[in-house]
Amino acid sequence: MGEFELIQRYFAKHRTHLAVIGIGDDAAVLEPLPKGQQQVVCLDTLVTGRHFYDGADAADVGWKSLAVNLSDLAAMGATPRWFQLGLTLPDADASWLAGFAKGLFECAEQYGVALIGGDTTRGPLSITVQAAGSVPAGMALLRSGAAVGDELYVSGTLGGAALALLHAEADQQPLNRPQPRMALGGALLGKATSAIDISDGLLADCSHVLEQSGVGATLRLGNVPLAPGIDESQLELALAGGDDYELLVTLPPNSDIATLEKIGQCALTRIGTIEAEVGLRCVSADGAPYNPGKRGWQHFGNSQ
Amino acid sequence: MGEFELIQRYFAKHRTHLAVIGIGDDAAVLEPLPKGQQQVVCLDTLVTGRHFYDGADAADVGWKSLAVNLSDLAAMGATPRWFQLGLTLPDADASWLAGFAKGLFECAEQYGVALIGGDTTRGPLSITVQAAGSVPAGMALLRSGAAVGDELYVSGTLGGAALALLHAEADQQPLNRPQPRMALGGALLGKATSAIDISDGLLADCSHVLEQSGVGATLRLGNVPLAPGIDESQLELALAGGDDYELLVTLPPNSDIATLEKIGQCALTRIGTIEAEVGLRCVSADGAPYNPGKRGWQHFGNSQ
Repeated sequence: MGEFELIQRYFAKHRTHLAVIGIGDDAAVLEPLPKGQQQVVCLDTLVTGRHFYDGADAADVGWKSLAVNLSDLAAMGATPRWFQLGLTLPDADASWLAGFAKGLFECAEQYGVALIGGDTTRGPLSITVQAAGSVPAGMALLRSGAAVGDELYVSGTLGGAALALLHAEADQQPLNRPQPRMALGGALLGKATSAIDISDGLLADCSHVLEQSGVGATLRLGNVPLAPGIDESQLELALAGGDDYELLVTLPPNSDIATLEKIGQCALTRIGTIEAEVGLRCVSADGAPYNPGKRGWQHFGNSQ
Repeated sequence: MGEFELIQRYFAKHRTHLAVIGIGDDAAVLEPLPKGQQQVVCLDTLVTGRHFYDGADAADVGWKSLAVNLSDLAAMGATPRWFQLGLTLPDADASWLAGFAKGLFECAEQYGVALIGGDTTRGPLSITVQAAGSVPAGMALLRSGAAVGDELYVSGTLGGAALALLHAEADQQPLNRPQPRMALGGALLGKATSAIDISDGLLADCSHVLEQSGVGATLRLGNVPLAPGIDESQLELALAGGDDYELLVTLPPNSDIATLEKIGQCALTRIGTIEAEVGLRCVSADGAPYNPGKRGWQHFGNSQ
């Protein structure tokens, strides 16, 4: 199958009003953003054996390739609009491609985002998705806005993806079909002082927020919401497992959490407080200081 | 070296006024386009052993990763603005990264385009660049606008990249450091009826224009401008070699070619005429019909 036939068969059938010119030219041409909006863009690569198993279900790979990018947009409070797909394949396997496209477009349709272009090439299996969304000008949620006295909240539960990696009999949905927190991201606009998605692990991503905000925090580990099937002895899965795609956010005291949970369609759990003293401190359920062994995912780190 | 240190060291030092928020958050936030402009976006992946030699000079790989995307923007008549980088590396080799960043930013600076974000991950060497530019609304050069009676022109010379692949002693610059035709793309706005960049080979890319425009053409092969070092017996290098990143454009009769060449900073050679009868016909220098053996580059085709 030629590249052009492959694109036509699996990827060119979805049209969108966002693109004046979509798939099929040298580049795509887009309708301007509504007045008063800024564009938000991100890009993430998934590689076999690193972000998914060799032999993983193609539909899951398609879903996740897009979902991890949408999670980055959610962390900015952006509404997703469109994406491009860079697909590198060892061969043009029709059944794999059909599955991949199915999962990819399931995710695209669930979150209202349109494929407008990309590239296919031959090589070791690897997928790069580039996604774009919009936020009201000046309102994007950044990592740098956490202020002393803010409270730290996390959405949903943590550690589910890490548990799925460890145990084949555990629920695989958190690992294979992460649900980006788009509704929550939107609900947090104008409310949260900072946000980040938890892709590297709670402690690592929390440290990014603290460093970029020039503040510190104490996390109360007894409050961290554990994914079903994780007990206290596996706390590290929730602290450093990564791949959770929940949002870690800071909110001023007395924020209306119940309303955010309702609009955001997920639970928010308070797990700590922002403090002036820089650095991340962890306190166990019994109040004792806790020294975690592993601070999260480092693609080129020594710990991997 | 951790991913964050790697990004800081090699990629985060270039700031741009285009990004409100650039490298270092979950996503980048961009300043709006000037009024009356549409955004043009593209994405291309380069894989070792397919788009460059295993062991190719890292600076050349950096240059080419961006240049092939800028060529797509040039073919739309777009002015480049920013790009994102998805870099998959087997390891964080400091000398390779320094070279790659040098070539990448040389190209970025030459064409006035800013790196605003991306992703690094570990895996078989592969580079995906996503680039964005702008055109005055409604004026992008498309593949679909060629009209009967238009004349077919090609910029520069063809076959240089294919010759470089065949012969190590040939000039390697066309293969390793392609020069996207940004100035020409801009000059063609409002003048050309269609444009495409010649990445797949002259005949293959010409066929794309003809199919999308619903027209045909006769190419006069004796007129095809051959790269230095290519003689008539190697015509197929210029017809089907690919990787040339010149522009193939259609222009109405009596267009002011001299002015386009001056503003576009390159030669334009007339190589054929658009006709109502669909299909691509080739005529040799002696006037005899010519049947090329190979129509260009197909990533998943049988001919590769």
